[in-house]
Amino acid sequence: MAITVVGSVAFDTVETPAGRRERCLAGAATYFSLAASYFTQVRVIAVVGEDFGPEQEAVFNARGIDTQGIERVPGKSFFWEGSYLENINEAKTHTTELNVFAGFEPKIPEAYSDSEFLFLANIDPVLQRRVREAMPKARLVAGDTMNYWIKDHKPALLEVLKGLDILLINDTEARMLAGNTNLVQSARCVLTLGPRMLVVKHGEYGATLFHKSIPKGAGSETFRAPAMPLEEVVDPTGAGDSFAGGFFGYLASQPELTPGAFRRAMFYGSVMGSFTVERFGTERLQQLSRKEIDERFHLFRELTHLD
Amino acid sequence: MAITVVGSVAFDTVETPAGRRERCLAGAATYFSLAASYFTQVRVIAVVGEDFGPEQEAVFNARGIDTQGIERVPGKSFFWEGSYLENINEAKTHTTELNVFAGFEPKIPEAYSDSEFLFLANIDPVLQRRVREAMPKARLVAGDTMNYWIKDHKPALLEVLKGLDILLINDTEARMLAGNTNLVQSARCVLTLGPRMLVVKHGEYGATLFHKSIPKGAGSETFRAPAMPLEEVVDPTGAGDSFAGGFFGYLASQPELTPGAFRRAMFYGSVMGSFTVERFGTERLQQLSRKEIDERFHLFRELTHLD
Repeated sequence: MAITVVGSVAFDTVETPAGRRERCLAGAATYFSLAASYFTQVRVIAVVGEDFGPEQEAVFNARGIDTQGIERVPGKSFFWEGSYLENINEAKTHTTELNVFAGFEPKIPEAYSDSEFLFLANIDPVLQRRVREAMPKARLVAGDTMNYWIKDHKPALLEVLKGLDILLINDTEARMLAGNTNLVQSARCVLTLGPRMLVVKHGEYGATLFHKSIPKGAGSETFRAPAMPLEEVVDPTGAGDSFAGGFFGYLASQPELTPGAFRRAMFYGSVMGSFTVERFGTERLQQLSRKEIDERFHLFRELTHLD
Repeated sequence: MAITVVGSVAFDTVETPAGRRERCLAGAATYFSLAASYFTQVRVIAVVGEDFGPEQEAVFNARGIDTQGIERVPGKSFFWEGSYLENINEAKTHTTELNVFAGFEPKIPEAYSDSEFLFLANIDPVLQRRVREAMPKARLVAGDTMNYWIKDHKPALLEVLKGLDILLINDTEARMLAGNTNLVQSARCVLTLGPRMLVVKHGEYGATLFHKSIPKGAGSETFRAPAMPLEEVVDPTGAGDSFAGGFFGYLASQPELTPGAFRRAMFYGSVMGSFTVERFGTERLQQLSRKEIDERFHLFRELTHLD
């Protein structure tokens, strides 16, 4: 099944203990679609400026990603500059330039309208909602958000949550959204806001999938996928978006959305996140093979299974 | 196989968002031996003061723990007072009174000398080493330590590490001991110091077992056990010591120390830690059944296994 994703396509300048890269191709929709492209057909809705040229276009084309929905407008693309020098798990933002993204009005190509899977990456919830409403055929809708929208645009975000099947956020965001420090209690609260599933990403410790009816004491429907203990994290940017791409891409590739499919999707999410952080930007995601992906899936199984 | 454990038997006054308890029976050796007692025979070496009376003795007796090695001396037992009010995962220490523990000279009863399993809980590494040397029949030796010994008593600690098969410490301690922020690199470094296995405890995110020869990229011998996502953490004190007790107790109960036994031991460690934090002090550990323990073991399996 095809996935449509709406989100940012951007350029990042990143510095980590492993080095520095200037203006890499980046953005949540980029990481998401590259990761998902190993599992299914992906269609992107985004806006870019004149700095998005054939070189960037080729990255999407090489993975067979449909870029009809990437609108080109005069000006510069979204740009972020940050570093992870003191703490590899926490970005320090130096610059955020919205540029053409400030006036983003998502336009959905006619050819995308039959997408049954829709992913609303981290953008203004007003736009997330507009895209969701314009895609009534989407039967599984997942989305992401961030602290900024939770703190300062909560009413709009709550409207988006009502239309989501699955919300994917990190620990801090889940606790902030629920106003609670306990993870299970926070999950229970978030699941009253609309989504029937919640994936909480724990960075280097993996991720947990919660279902709407969490039995007392977390119970047997909750599922935890590990992250790979990695020798070197070169650049953590995009790990969460790659997780989402692997997770949702795998689901879209399945004939039936069984509980087992969701468990395997959690593993594929972790697998794609673990590849992304091994190189700068999207370097690693551009050149994977399904064989490498499945080999790492099996390593994750060995890492966690009793026998 | 019997385990001998040396460590603190103490009293704690603890305050958490769930309430306050005055002078609960506590100490690393207490949590460890109660947790391990569900799997095997446990023998304790410790020192207590006159405040350790029949009520405390009865807690050990009820679990069949051998207390011959708990020496009674004039004065008061080790006492700790702390709270977890701002962050349930981080203790704030208000008072530490070593009391009779300041002059602790471990004395090993003759009846303990055939113990094949030895656990050196977190105490002065000089004493850990003395006990290890006095127990030459111990064929599997595990131990714990803490930031204080790593920072200010490193030479003595390094001597202890040379005699350990398994070191169990938390994330911060592993990174501090290795002087490295990457978990896998830290594990690799610690495993050059003596232990052939390292268990790194990640608090609410579980624990990872590393083996001496970590293949490039962590590899298939590494094993990660989850922690239980819990609705309420009443009192996190003793979770790490209970993990150690479940882990080492289960190993001591096994006819053969296969790789599978170590994986299951990691799960039993997490299981015992998850019980401890559900009530104050040792309340929950005192009244478990093996059936409850095995039921939670199966919940952990469902939480992590693909099928």
